[in-house]
Amino acid sequence: MSESTPLTSSRAAHEIARVRAAAPLVHCLTNSVVTPFTANVLLACGCAPAMVVAREEVAAFAAVASTLSVNVGTLDSHQAEAILLAVRAAAEAGTPWTLDPVAVGALAYRTAFSHELLAFAPAAIRGNASEIIALAGLGHGGRGVDSTAGSDEAVSAAVALARRTGAVVAVTGATDYITDGERLLSVANGHPLLQRVTGTGCSLSALVAASMAGAPDRLHAAASACAWMAIAGEQAAEQAAGPGSFAVALLDALAGLDAPTLERRLPA
Amino acid sequence: MSESTPLTSSRAAHEIARVRAAAPLVHCLTNSVVTPFTANVLLACGCAPAMVVAREEVAAFAAVASTLSVNVGTLDSHQAEAILLAVRAAAEAGTPWTLDPVAVGALAYRTAFSHELLAFAPAAIRGNASEIIALAGLGHGGRGVDSTAGSDEAVSAAVALARRTGAVVAVTGATDYITDGERLLSVANGHPLLQRVTGTGCSLSALVAASMAGAPDRLHAAASACAWMAIAGEQAAEQAAGPGSFAVALLDALAGLDAPTLERRLPA
Amino acid sequence: MSESTPLTSSRAAHEIARVRAAAPLVHCLTNSVVTPFTANVLLACGCAPAMVVAREEVAAFAAVASTLSVNVGTLDSHQAEAILLAVRAAAEAGTPWTLDPVAVGALAYRTAFSHELLAFAPAAIRGNASEIIALAGLGHGGRGVDSTAGSDEAVSAAVALARRTGAVVAVTGATDYITDGERLLSVANGHPLLQRVTGTGCSLSALVAASMAGAPDRLHAAASACAWMAIAGEQAAEQAAGPGSFAVALLDALAGLDAPTLERRLPA
Repeated sequence: MSESTPLTSSRAAHEIARVRAAAPLVHCLTNSVVTPFTANVLLACGCAPAMVVAREEVAAFAAVASTLSVNVGTLDSHQAEAILLAVRAAAEAGTPWTLDPVAVGALAYRTAFSHELLAFAPAAIRGNASEIIALAGLGHGGRGVDSTAGSDEAVSAAVALARRTGAVVAVTGATDYITDGERLLSVANGHPLLQRVTGTGCSLSALVAASMAGAPDRLHAAASACAWMAIAGEQAAEQAAGPGSFAVALLDALAGLDAPTLERRLPA
Repeated sequence: MSESTPLTSSRAAHEIARVRAAAPLVHCLTNSVVTPFTANVLLACGCAPAMVVAREEVAAFAAVASTLSVNVGTLDSHQAEAILLAVRAAAEAGTPWTLDPVAVGALAYRTAFSHELLAFAPAAIRGNASEIIALAGLGHGGRGVDSTAGSDEAVSAAVALARRTGAVVAVTGATDYITDGERLLSVANGHPLLQRVTGTGCSLSALVAASMAGAPDRLHAAASACAWMAIAGEQAAEQAAGPGSFAVALLDALAGLDAPTLERRLPA
Repeated sequence: MSESTPLTSSRAAHEIARVRAAAPLVHCLTNSVVTPFTANVLLACGCAPAMVVAREEVAAFAAVASTLSVNVGTLDSHQAEAILLAVRAAAEAGTPWTLDPVAVGALAYRTAFSHELLAFAPAAIRGNASEIIALAGLGHGGRGVDSTAGSDEAVSAAVALARRTGAVVAVTGATDYITDGERLLSVANGHPLLQRVTGTGCSLSALVAASMAGAPDRLHAAASACAWMAIAGEQAAEQAAGPGSFAVALLDALAGLDAPTLERRLPA
C-alpha cells in the first residue's frame, strides 16, 4: 500500500456539507493552549463545541454528545482521570471518539496514557509524523510538540496503527496521509503559516472528531477534515501579512469554504 | 409584566460612560474556553480584569475587587471550592457578584452547584433562555452550551428568578430581556455572528459584572452592558468577512462605541 | 547607577537574529489567561513553545528544553508543585529560567511562592514596577495585575533584586529598564494599546525567557526582547482601529520586525 489516492473535490465537498448540515455537538477534552481556538474553529465550521471537563460531568456528556475529541497536549492526572471516564462512556454509548497524541514519544507520561487509551477503540487518530510513529511503537517522538520526521516517513506506521486499533489514522504534514489500514488517501494542500499559529493541528483533530459523527465513510470524513483546514490555510495565507492576520483569515476561510474553491484546489 | 420597555440610548450612554470612568477591577472565575477573550473584552471596555483562581487567594481578592464574575462553563471540584470561597467573601465584603449559569439544566453537577450559589445573593445573573429557565426550576436545559428556547420564552422564568434571588436577571437571545422582578427592559440588537465566536455570551456576563460595580441602578446597568455587546456586534458584522474578522472587529467596536452610535441604534 | 544607557539598534538586531536562528524550545508554565497568546507570540518570533504542565512531565522536559518560562498569574497549589519541580530540574540541568511575578505584592500566596523561587537562581525576571518593587521587598504591590508605580520608580529596586539574585531584571512601563545589577539599559518604545490586550506583558516575559537560551550577554538579550515587543507595538498601533486589530497586527509585526525598522526606532 505505498500508493496513495488523492482526495477528490467532490468527496470533500460532500463530506464538508454533511458536517455543516449535522452541526454535531463536539465534546472536547483538549489542552489549555488551544481551547479557545479549537472552539472557534468548530464554530466556524458549523459545529457546536462543548468543553465539559469535570469528573462529575464527562461521562454523562460523552454519552449524549455527537462525538468526543481527546487531546493530551497538557495532560495532567486530573485530566487523565476525566479523559478515561469520558472515553469509557463514549465507547459504551457508541459515541465515536478521536485521539490527538500531542508530543507522544517525546514525554513518557502521556505516551503511556495514550497507549492505554487505544484499548477503547478510537474512531480516528490525528497526529504529526513523530507522534504517529511513536504511537505505533516505531520511534521515539519529536522535539516538543513538533515533528522531526516528514509525513511520508510515517505512512507505514499509520497503516500499522490503523490495522491494530481499527481507527482511521491521519498523519499530517507537507502532505497529509489518511488511512483505515486498507485504503490510503492523500491531501497535498496547506501552507507553512499553519505552523506559526498555535492550535491549528489540535483544532484539526477536533474537526476530524466532528466529521466522525454519523459518518458513513470515516476515511473520507477524516481526509475531508484535513482538506478543509489545509485549503482554508491556503486561502488565508493569500491575504495574511503575518501569523496574526493569518489566524483571523483562517477562521473566515473555514466558515466560507465552498465547492468552487474545493474544485480549484483539489483533483476532480 | 408581559410588556417590556426598550432601553433608551441616553440611559445606555450614561451607563457605559459610568463603567469606563470607574474602570472597575473585575475578579473573574470563569471557564477555560473563554478566559483570554473575556479579559480582552473587559480591557476593550476600559475595565481591569484579574483572573485570580487559587483557593489561597480568591477570598482576599474578592473582598477588594470592585466586582466578581462567576461562570460555571468548565466547573470542576477545585474551581467549585474556589468559587464558593470567593462568593462567600464577596457577599461578606459587599462586593457585588454575577453568575453565568453556562449549560445549567443540561448537566447535573453544575446545576446543583449553581442552585447552591443562589443563596449568596447574586447582584446579577446572565444566561441564555434554556439556562435561565433551568435555573428558575422550570425546565431541563439546552443542547450543550446552546439554548433550545427563544429568549421570549424565558421572560416569566427570568422574572420569577429575579424575585426569588433579588438579582437582576438578563436572558439574552434575538432580543435580550433584563428584569429586576418588577421592571422589564428589552434590547433588540445583535447579530448572528455573535453565536459563531466562543465567549461572546460569557464575556457579556463579565461585562454585566463590571457594570454592577457601584451601580446606582442595576437594571439599567445590566441592560446597558447587553446593549454594549449587541451593538458592537452589529458594527463588527458590517466589516467582517467571517467569524475570525468579526471577533477582532468586535473588540475594536466595544472599545470605540460612542453616543452617536447608540443614538442611531437604540430608541431615544 | 542612576544613568541608563539606551539599547542600540545594532545590538537589538543582533540579539533578535540570534533568537530567530536558534529557534529555542521554550518550556512555559504560565497562567490560564495568556497561554494561547504566549504560544502565538513565541511562534511569531520563530521560537518553539511547549506548555508541558504535569507533575509527571515537567522535570524531564525542563531539563531538555532550551529555556523555561515561569509565570504565577493564575498560580494554584497544583501549578506551584509543578513549577517547583520544573525550576529545580532546570537549575540542575543548566536550563536558564525566567520569572514573571504577576501581581506579586498584591496577593500573599504568590508573593511568598515567588520569593521561594528566587533561591533557584533565575536567569531573568520581568515585571511591572509594582511587582519588581514588591519582589525586591520594597513595597506592597499594585492594583490587581496593574502597576501603581512608574517604571522609573522601580529602577533601584530592580538593581537591588538583580544584585541579590544574579538575574537580569527587566522592569517594563513607559520606559523599560533592564539591569544586571551593574549595567542599566533602557528602551523608550511602546504604545498604550499594549495595555489594552491581555498577555502582552506575560508573553514578553516568555520572549525574555526565549532570549536567555544560549545568550552570551543576558543583559542585551533581555533588553532586546523588550525592544522587540515595544517596537512591534508601535508598528501595530499605526494600523490598528482598536485593541482587537492591534493584537492581530502585533503578532504580524513581531514576525516581521527587521533591521531597518529597528534602525528607525532605536538609537544607533
